[in-house]
Amino acid sequence: MNDWQTELKADIKAALEGLAGRTINHVFFVACGGSLAVMHPAKYLLDRQSAALTSDCYNSDEFVHRSPRALGTNTLVVLCSMTGTTRETLRAAEHARAKGATTIGLSQDLNSPLATAVDHAVRFEAPYTTGVPIDAIDSNYSCLYQIVMGLVRIYDGIDKLRPLLASLGNLQAAIDRAHLTYAGLFEQFAPRFKDEPVIYTVASGANYGAAYSYAICVLMEMQWINSQAIHANEFFHGPFEVLDEDKAFIMMLGLDETRPLEERAKGFLERFGSSEKIMVLDARELDLSGIDDEFKGNVVPLIFFDTLWKFAYKLADLRQHAMLEGRRYMKKINY
Amino acid sequence: MNDWQTELKADIKAALEGLAGRTINHVFFVACGGSLAVMHPAKYLLDRQSAALTSDCYNSDEFVHRSPRALGTNTLVVLCSMTGTTRETLRAAEHARAKGATTIGLSQDLNSPLATAVDHAVRFEAPYTTGVPIDAIDSNYSCLYQIVMGLVRIYDGIDKLRPLLASLGNLQAAIDRAHLTYAGLFEQFAPRFKDEPVIYTVASGANYGAAYSYAICVLMEMQWINSQAIHANEFFHGPFEVLDEDKAFIMMLGLDETRPLEERAKGFLERFGSSEKIMVLDARELDLSGIDDEFKGNVVPLIFFDTLWKFAYKLADLRQHAMLEGRRYMKKINY
Repeated sequence: MNDWQTELKADIKAALEGLAGRTINHVFFVACGGSLAVMHPAKYLLDRQSAALTSDCYNSDEFVHRSPRALGTNTLVVLCSMTGTTRETLRAAEHARAKGATTIGLSQDLNSPLATAVDHAVRFEAPYTTGVPIDAIDSNYSCLYQIVMGLVRIYDGIDKLRPLLASLGNLQAAIDRAHLTYAGLFEQFAPRFKDEPVIYTVASGANYGAAYSYAICVLMEMQWINSQAIHANEFFHGPFEVLDEDKAFIMMLGLDETRPLEERAKGFLERFGSSEKIMVLDARELDLSGIDDEFKGNVVPLIFFDTLWKFAYKLADLRQHAMLEGRRYMKKINY
Repeated sequence: MNDWQTELKADIKAALEGLAGRTINHVFFVACGGSLAVMHPAKYLLDRQSAALTSDCYNSDEFVHRSPRALGTNTLVVLCSMTGTTRETLRAAEHARAKGATTIGLSQDLNSPLATAVDHAVRFEAPYTTGVPIDAIDSNYSCLYQIVMGLVRIYDGIDKLRPLLASLGNLQAAIDRAHLTYAGLFEQFAPRFKDEPVIYTVASGANYGAAYSYAICVLMEMQWINSQAIHANEFFHGPFEVLDEDKAFIMMLGLDETRPLEERAKGFLERFGSSEKIMVLDARELDLSGIDDEFKGNVVPLIFFDTLWKFAYKLADLRQHAMLEGRRYMKKINY
């Protein structure tokens, strides 16, 4: 398995080749906010596919101060920051290198501070803030999944890169179709949700990161709506007690192995909540042609997050609260 | 280091001796809700102290369905359920054993279903639901910390059990003093918080689990107050945008290595929030006599959670919403 008989992106291929001969037994996925949210599905994929590599997902500043003793020459640290300028993530990269770990840094720019602070820089494209359409194969999710399955190839001797890359190549078309699938749902729920003081998101497994990101980076950050991403089973161990017919929830039903957890939460929400206030995104309604069965569960959170972005703009219009420009602290003041 | 020259609880000692000769390289901490919350500080301690053992904290149902490929004969699974009857956690124990992992199960009863489903059962005492006073050395936190430092002794060859046990032996007195320290604060804030529709908790490091538990098991479950446990640095990557002078926060300032993250969040909360609505618990105000410096940060979350329980009862009185009896779904209906 010396040759990478696949069309991995050149920078990802170089990063993986850079690991040649290095013993790695643990991966730290490190980032902040929306970029940390994307690490969760990456860890899900690694957990499912690798017997050789365990992993952690840490907020960058937590990672630096916690400074796990296991961090060292036999660990890989994968960092991500869209702009590549997030201070906490830069410090995390420096900390990781000082401890002898190998570092891979993802950002939009191969000349960003993060890109120059790591051993191996990887470039991705982000659609949300620029408004310029991208192909999903160039997204942060896609790059992370390629890295993860590259690691599985190296350290577990299992090569699934071909079906992964084929699936990622067909993903943008699936996303475009998903926008049509959910358009009616979003049209229906935006007026129902526009005055809600609290909107919860619920998911598990590969989808939890998308639920987290939507709660903290979209609802809270861009619409000042109170929220929490509730894990679909943790829901039954406390959070479900807030449920009544007035409460608003966005429920994600994915296609990964934890779907039964999400189905159970959905059942409870529909039993005691109001159907007017429970917006269910069910990935079974999606046309995932061209996505390999093995990776369907993994691409669903990307589809959910991308399509829900449209829902956020609908909410923003009805609430007359601009999305990015509406922020009062982020990128407006020093802190 | 064959002899355990310390007064470990007999069941914990037996569990650790049961690991003799077993190669373990990863620990899964597995539970639901409040019992999962306690696993986070255990992982924090293990991260800080062990270079040999990495770990994961998973909700029990997530653990079973995710079924990480690394789960196997070289892994230890530590499970916890107060009653020892939580179905998801029982299934997790069975799943772990079927995969060849060694299992340790903590519950209040050595004859509970969980105790009989695991290789090694450990008993702890819980004060919150029975109302009977306990000594903190018999709590779930204390048992977990003893297990963690026992693992560090076995797999890292570092024995800090004596100072740990001495610290845990002095913990109840520190908690009793803490109740007095915070009594005035709670008296002041209960009337201010009683009508709040949303109360957030904020913490990092060793304290995050206590913030999580207070948000989901106390505020949401027992008072039907909307909440989220916000990580102190993640706060700056989205959640802080909800902050204005009307928002209520419980801010925890601990003594572990991540305190600077909590201090930064506190500074921001006080800058843009109202001092009437930001309740700060600062562990520097505590008298921690008898607690070894090395473990001060680790015992703080237990002190916070125990004392905040009193705050919850004050809120409950003012809101005329009973704590345990006030639940509408948990232990009242089948789901």
